[in-house]
Amino acid sequence: MPQRTFQAPKGTRDFYPADLALRRHVEAAWRSASVDFGFEEVEGPTFEHLELYTVKSGPGIVSELFSFRRAGGDDDYALRPEFTPTLARMVAARGGSLPVPVKWFAIPNFFRAERPQRGRLREFTQWNVDLLGLDTPDADAEVIAVAALALERLGLRPADVRIKLSHRGAMGAALGAMGVRPDQVAGAFELLDRRDRLDPAAIRARATEIGLSDAALQSLMLAAATRIPLEGGAAAIAKALGIGATGLEAIDALCAALGARGIAGWCEWDLGIVRGLAYYTGSVFEIHEASGAERAIAGGGRYDGLVELVGGPKTSAFGFGMGDVVLSLVLKDRGLLPADGGESLLPRPDVFLISADQSADPVMHRLAAELRRAGLHVRHSYKTTRNVGKLLGDAGKCRARRAVILDAGLASGQVSVKDLDGGSQTAVAMSDLVATLTA
Amino acid sequence: MPQRTFQAPKGTRDFYPADLALRRHVEAAWRSASVDFGFEEVEGPTFEHLELYTVKSGPGIVSELFSFRRAGGDDDYALRPEFTPTLARMVAARGGSLPVPVKWFAIPNFFRAERPQRGRLREFTQWNVDLLGLDTPDADAEVIAVAALALERLGLRPADVRIKLSHRGAMGAALGAMGVRPDQVAGAFELLDRRDRLDPAAIRARATEIGLSDAALQSLMLAAATRIPLEGGAAAIAKALGIGATGLEAIDALCAALGARGIAGWCEWDLGIVRGLAYYTGSVFEIHEASGAERAIAGGGRYDGLVELVGGPKTSAFGFGMGDVVLSLVLKDRGLLPADGGESLLPRPDVFLISADQSADPVMHRLAAELRRAGLHVRHSYKTTRNVGKLLGDAGKCRARRAVILDAGLASGQVSVKDLDGGSQTAVAMSDLVATLTA
Repeated sequence: MPQRTFQAPKGTRDFYPADLALRRHVEAAWRSASVDFGFEEVEGPTFEHLELYTVKSGPGIVSELFSFRRAGGDDDYALRPEFTPTLARMVAARGGSLPVPVKWFAIPNFFRAERPQRGRLREFTQWNVDLLGLDTPDADAEVIAVAALALERLGLRPADVRIKLSHRGAMGAALGAMGVRPDQVAGAFELLDRRDRLDPAAIRARATEIGLSDAALQSLMLAAATRIPLEGGAAAIAKALGIGATGLEAIDALCAALGARGIAGWCEWDLGIVRGLAYYTGSVFEIHEASGAERAIAGGGRYDGLVELVGGPKTSAFGFGMGDVVLSLVLKDRGLLPADGGESLLPRPDVFLISADQSADPVMHRLAAELRRAGLHVRHSYKTTRNVGKLLGDAGKCRARRAVILDAGLASGQVSVKDLDGGSQTAVAMSDLVATLTA
Repeated sequence: MPQRTFQAPKGTRDFYPADLALRRHVEAAWRSASVDFGFEEVEGPTFEHLELYTVKSGPGIVSELFSFRRAGGDDDYALRPEFTPTLARMVAARGGSLPVPVKWFAIPNFFRAERPQRGRLREFTQWNVDLLGLDTPDADAEVIAVAALALERLGLRPADVRIKLSHRGAMGAALGAMGVRPDQVAGAFELLDRRDRLDPAAIRARATEIGLSDAALQSLMLAAATRIPLEGGAAAIAKALGIGATGLEAIDALCAALGARGIAGWCEWDLGIVRGLAYYTGSVFEIHEASGAERAIAGGGRYDGLVELVGGPKTSAFGFGMGDVVLSLVLKDRGLLPADGGESLLPRPDVFLISADQSADPVMHRLAAELRRAGLHVRHSYKTTRNVGKLLGDAGKCRARRAVILDAGLASGQVSVKDLDGGSQTAVAMSDLVATLTA
């Protein structure tokens, strides 16, 4: 048969051991931050009914999804592009029977049928944190604080990444004060969200379609460029926009809740943040590399209507997603990932067994089994060489903590235990070996 | 908008926190056994080019897969039904540059477009362990020993589950000695594999197609029913089949290698095991519940041709897959999963903070942030009640280890720390609190 070769599908990744160790390192920070805040892990199906996505995002979403049917089946499915619809469905299915607030996190893989580019792949891993059933700035601040803790554990500092906040309700009030009519606000948000992908003429054309006056469009663009230190709050935002602070009360409430959690230093107001998804209802945020390099590291906000939309009770909700791809680029750029590509993150063997003579092989295999049953990570060479120096070299290469050398001493019940970090070597009786190594 | 409700797709699962804790418990045993044997974790794409599966399994596999194209694209993809093709592709892509032997494990999700039934779902999690580049009974035995260690860590014993072994090469020799011609052996294996799904007339019809004599078919069915204790080895198998032991040498070599690893007690010969997949070349095995209840818990074997088939160098390989669905049924049946559905496997909070007066809330939030940054799992109530007794009840419900009560003592810099396991309560100065709790 002629040989043929295969590649991974475009936009997907093969994770060799060191590659996966890097991803697990990021996931461990995500998981520990979630757990320390009392969030519990959930998971759902990798694919859902296609309609779960179209009911939330409209039929336009279909072209961005990998969708399919089972041969002979008539249900349309799609690989999940995000977790929120699954989460809303799971909350809806349990109706009012879940303890409130619901505090869930998930670390699934997601799929987007887009053109792969820097920071955006067709399959990626994303951390999701959601707090449901609590409609207060405290809920918003707690979820944002989980994100900050994970970033801190990965070595990032407020100088490296910025949590950029806005608030849809307050922004609606601000736009109203700046001459945007209530019926134009949704269109204005959409225009804000798409502004970086449109040229000035297209922006003006879209503004005309919405019915925005030139003055209102100027105000909108002024808002889009407005960045204010967190502690400036509503007063500073009102001043920057040339309006009164009425309707901006949510701004100061969120400031206070973030400050109470010790994360004010990570945060700032950026009124250009709107989040594309139509279902956000209150606070919204994105996390960006401080200089603006790369795509957003994370994004989220309040989505109080979604659980009801998929058949559940009215449920307030705040959450975010943080993907592994952009975050890993930022960590690498900041020198926060090991330069060896992840090799140093692989599990270290506790013991490397060296059989200096073939006659010791049966003892080595029995000992390996016993030590593994006792919970130790045990390796040995598969080479035919019996050169102890070479085998100690192999033990060092796989970063074993200790080597156990089975040599002539075995006849009198003795083995040598070498500490490969410190270098010391001691003789240990076989009968004490397991106790010594597991101590 | 009219409400509509959504279910998870047929044959898939929603994992609420306790459900996922159960799966993570199983995965932890898989992962720790793999690591303790020196296997390194890998992962690949959730979908692959469809042809990767058809080149290995033939076009018949397509109806068992979820396959799809990207809108406007012309590549056919399929959700992965198993890991081996991905693994073979990844090994082939690195050619000879990987350190030998390659010892990899993976715990991905897989997808089969089959009718869901007990023990078989459309999406499931499966542990894969593979050792490549070593063509010895030691390699086979080591991989099988990893499976046994994980099962033991989950509480199973040799009386609960049996590792049933056969060997395609030895069985080919045995069938030859029983009158099956070399050109009939592949057909005979296929018939063995399918025998439980065929009635006697269909078995006879298929035997006639292959050209098996009545005597050869009888021998085949005798072999299919032959179970021999592991230590009986080639001699006992030859005796049971009424043939000589020539050609069965691989049997005794595998016996010795399994015995050297201390797992002989889990193993037995079952010549009815052939494994459906055509690519197995040597030892094959399945793990079954001891009484024969449920489907196979795991299955695997030697597949020395696969890496070459997908474009890599000739590479010997031995591996298995163990799914979460059947294993969980067996564990549940044996009482080896918590009766509370997994609640007791959820992470326990280290500290539950109780603010006995609203004025203490800012201190509580600052303290929570500080303790979490120190690595503790910290919770607090979201209720408006300030009844310390009720709040202690909530702390107990979420299985917190300690409660920290912020009450009137706060004015003089004191808080109460209550040990919720032991019941003792002590006053601690705020300035010592973090050190006390992280000690």
